[in-house]
Amino acid sequence: MSHERTLTGITTTGTPHIGNYVGAIRPAITMSHAENVISFYFLADYHALVKNRDPKVLKKSTLEIAAAWLALGLDTDKSIFYRQSDIPEIFELTWILTCMTAKGLMNRAHSYKASVALNENSATKDPDQGISMGLYNYPILMAADILMFNADKVPVGKDQIQHLEMTRDIAARYNHYYGEHFVLPKAIIDEKLSVLPGLDGQKMSKSYNNTIPLFLPEKKLRKMIMKIKTNSQEPGEPKDADSSTLFEFYKAFANEVEVEDMRKQYVQGIAWGEMKNILFEKINSELLEPRKHYEELLQKPQHIEKILQEGAKKAREYSVPFLQEIRKAIGFGLLG
Amino acid sequence: MSHERTLTGITTTGTPHIGNYVGAIRPAITMSHAENVISFYFLADYHALVKNRDPKVLKKSTLEIAAAWLALGLDTDKSIFYRQSDIPEIFELTWILTCMTAKGLMNRAHSYKASVALNENSATKDPDQGISMGLYNYPILMAADILMFNADKVPVGKDQIQHLEMTRDIAARYNHYYGEHFVLPKAIIDEKLSVLPGLDGQKMSKSYNNTIPLFLPEKKLRKMIMKIKTNSQEPGEPKDADSSTLFEFYKAFANEVEVEDMRKQYVQGIAWGEMKNILFEKINSELLEPRKHYEELLQKPQHIEKILQEGAKKAREYSVPFLQEIRKAIGFGLLG
Repeated sequence: MSHERTLTGITTTGTPHIGNYVGAIRPAITMSHAENVISFYFLADYHALVKNRDPKVLKKSTLEIAAAWLALGLDTDKSIFYRQSDIPEIFELTWILTCMTAKGLMNRAHSYKASVALNENSATKDPDQGISMGLYNYPILMAADILMFNADKVPVGKDQIQHLEMTRDIAARYNHYYGEHFVLPKAIIDEKLSVLPGLDGQKMSKSYNNTIPLFLPEKKLRKMIMKIKTNSQEPGEPKDADSSTLFEFYKAFANEVEVEDMRKQYVQGIAWGEMKNILFEKINSELLEPRKHYEELLQKPQHIEKILQEGAKKAREYSVPFLQEIRKAIGFGLLG
Repeated sequence: MSHERTLTGITTTGTPHIGNYVGAIRPAITMSHAENVISFYFLADYHALVKNRDPKVLKKSTLEIAAAWLALGLDTDKSIFYRQSDIPEIFELTWILTCMTAKGLMNRAHSYKASVALNENSATKDPDQGISMGLYNYPILMAADILMFNADKVPVGKDQIQHLEMTRDIAARYNHYYGEHFVLPKAIIDEKLSVLPGLDGQKMSKSYNNTIPLFLPEKKLRKMIMKIKTNSQEPGEPKDADSSTLFEFYKAFANEVEVEDMRKQYVQGIAWGEMKNILFEKINSELLEPRKHYEELLQKPQHIEKILQEGAKKAREYSVPFLQEIRKAIGFGLLG
C-alpha cells in the first residue's frame, strides 16, 4: 500500500514566536506522529540564501530552528527531517524544472510583483532595481523541493497557494513531455487553525513588532503576557470573552472544557490581572519542558547535526533513485 | 606550482561541420595535448535541455559529439573530458550563483534580448511569449560551469564575450560577500583562427545551409567539395588565390610550404577541377583515420560511457571539495 506523502518547508530565518507555534509548528508536529502518512519536514536553508549574506546568522538560525522543532517533539522516527542543503538532487531537479517553466509564469509571482510595485512607486524607473535572481527564481526551487519527493499534500498558508499552483503547472509540463513521473501536489489550508493575535490585538507578526518569542525565559514570558492589551473594565464587571485578546490566547492552549469554564468566569467578571496569571500558567506549562529541552539542544550542535544527517540519509533514499528515473526519461546516459 | 586552467564547453546539439572543426574543435584538441595547463572539456547536455524535448535526440547528439571529439584525438589522459550532467555540484553552485545575480544583469543578456525583440515585432504584445526560464537563466548555469573549476581562461567566440563578463560579475559579487574563492575568468578570443567559408563562399553556418558535415563518407565528401563555388575562369588562366573559396579551404588544411606552392599554381592557371581534387585529397587525408575511428566509436556507446565516467571522476576531484569550501564560507553545516 502506498502511503500518502506530506511535505512541510521550514523557514530558517529569525526566531519562531508563539503565533508561528500555534498556527504552523504545533499542527505540523502533531502530523509527524500520524500513522499511514509519510511526512517530510525540511529546513529551507537554500531559500534563506536569497536574503541572507551572513554565514554566522545562517548557521545560528538553522541551529535554533532545528532545535526548536526537535524540542517541541517532532517525531524523527516516523517522519523524515532534513536540511534542504543536504539533498543535492534538489538542485539538479531545479535546473530541469527551470527548463520546463515559462518566463511568463514567474512574471506573475506575487512576491516578485510586490517588489516590482515597490520599485515603480520609488524614485528609480527600473522595475527590477535591487531584485536578485534568487527572489525571481525561488518558486522553481520550491517546486523542486515538493516534486523531488512527489508529495501529495503540502500544508501551506494562503499566501503560498500560488506557489503550489505554479508547482502543478511546472510538473504538468514535464509530465507532458516525458510521461507521468510527477504527482501534482495539493495545497492543504486548514481554515480552523488559530491565527493568534499579537500583544496589541492585531495579528501576531514580526512586521507589527507585537510578537511573543516562543522560548522566552519564564520571567520574561510572564512580563510579556502581562503586557497583552485589555480594555479598562474593573474586576467584577462582566466581560465579553469573544472580543478579548487574552481569551483568544487561552483558547489556543486550553482544552474545550477549560475554555467553556473560562467563558463563564468572564461573565462572572474575572479580573484582567487574574486572567493574565491563569494564561501565563497555561502557556508556561505547555512550554516548560520544550524550553528546557531547547536550551539543552542549543548546547549540542553535534547532536542536531547527527539527526539532520540521518534525516538526509532517509530523504536521499527517495531523491537519489527518483532523480535517476527523471534523468533517464529526459535521455541522459548513453546506455539503456 | 599551480597550473593554469582552461575550460571549453561543447554544445551537444546537431552534427559538427568542417567549419566547427577548423574554427573550434581542432584548436581545442591541440590544446588538450599542451603541458603545464589543466584543460577541462565538457559536453553541455544540460544546456541542450533548454531547447531539446526528445530523449532520443539528446542521447544521439551526446553520443555523436563525444565520439567526434574522441575520434579527432582529444587527449583524455592529459585533459579532463566529462559530461555536465555527471557533475551534480554544478547545479547546487548554480543556485548559489542565482542568489548572487541581479535580475537586471539577466535582462541585458543578448540571447534573451534577441528573443524579446522577435516577440515585439510579432503579433503578440507579450515580450516574454514562448521564452522559457531555461533560456533566461542559462548565463547563470554557464557561470557555474566555469566557476565550478575556477578556470582562468575560457576560449570563446565573440558572441560569448558577454557571458564571460556576466560570469566575472557574478563571481565578484560572491567574493565580495564571502571572500576570494572564485578566480575571475578571462575570455580568450583567437583572432587568427580560420573562419571557414561555406559551399557558397559565405561564412559556413547551419543557418545558411551551406555546411559540409565533418564525417561525411568519402564519396559524399568528394561530391560536396566539387560543389564549392568558383568563378568561370578557364584552365590556364591565372587566378586570384585570395578571392578563392577553394584556396581558403586549402589554407585551413595545408602547411605553409604547401600553401605557398599552391599560390604559385594559381598564378600558373590551375584548373578548378584539378584544384578541387587536390583539396579533396588534402581534407580527406586529414579526416580519413578520425572518420574510421568515429564510425567504430558510434558502435561502442558503452566504451564512450566508460570514458565519460572516468572523466567525471577526475572532474569531481575538483568540484566536490571546492563546493564544500564554498558551502562552508556561506555558513552551511552546524559544526566548524
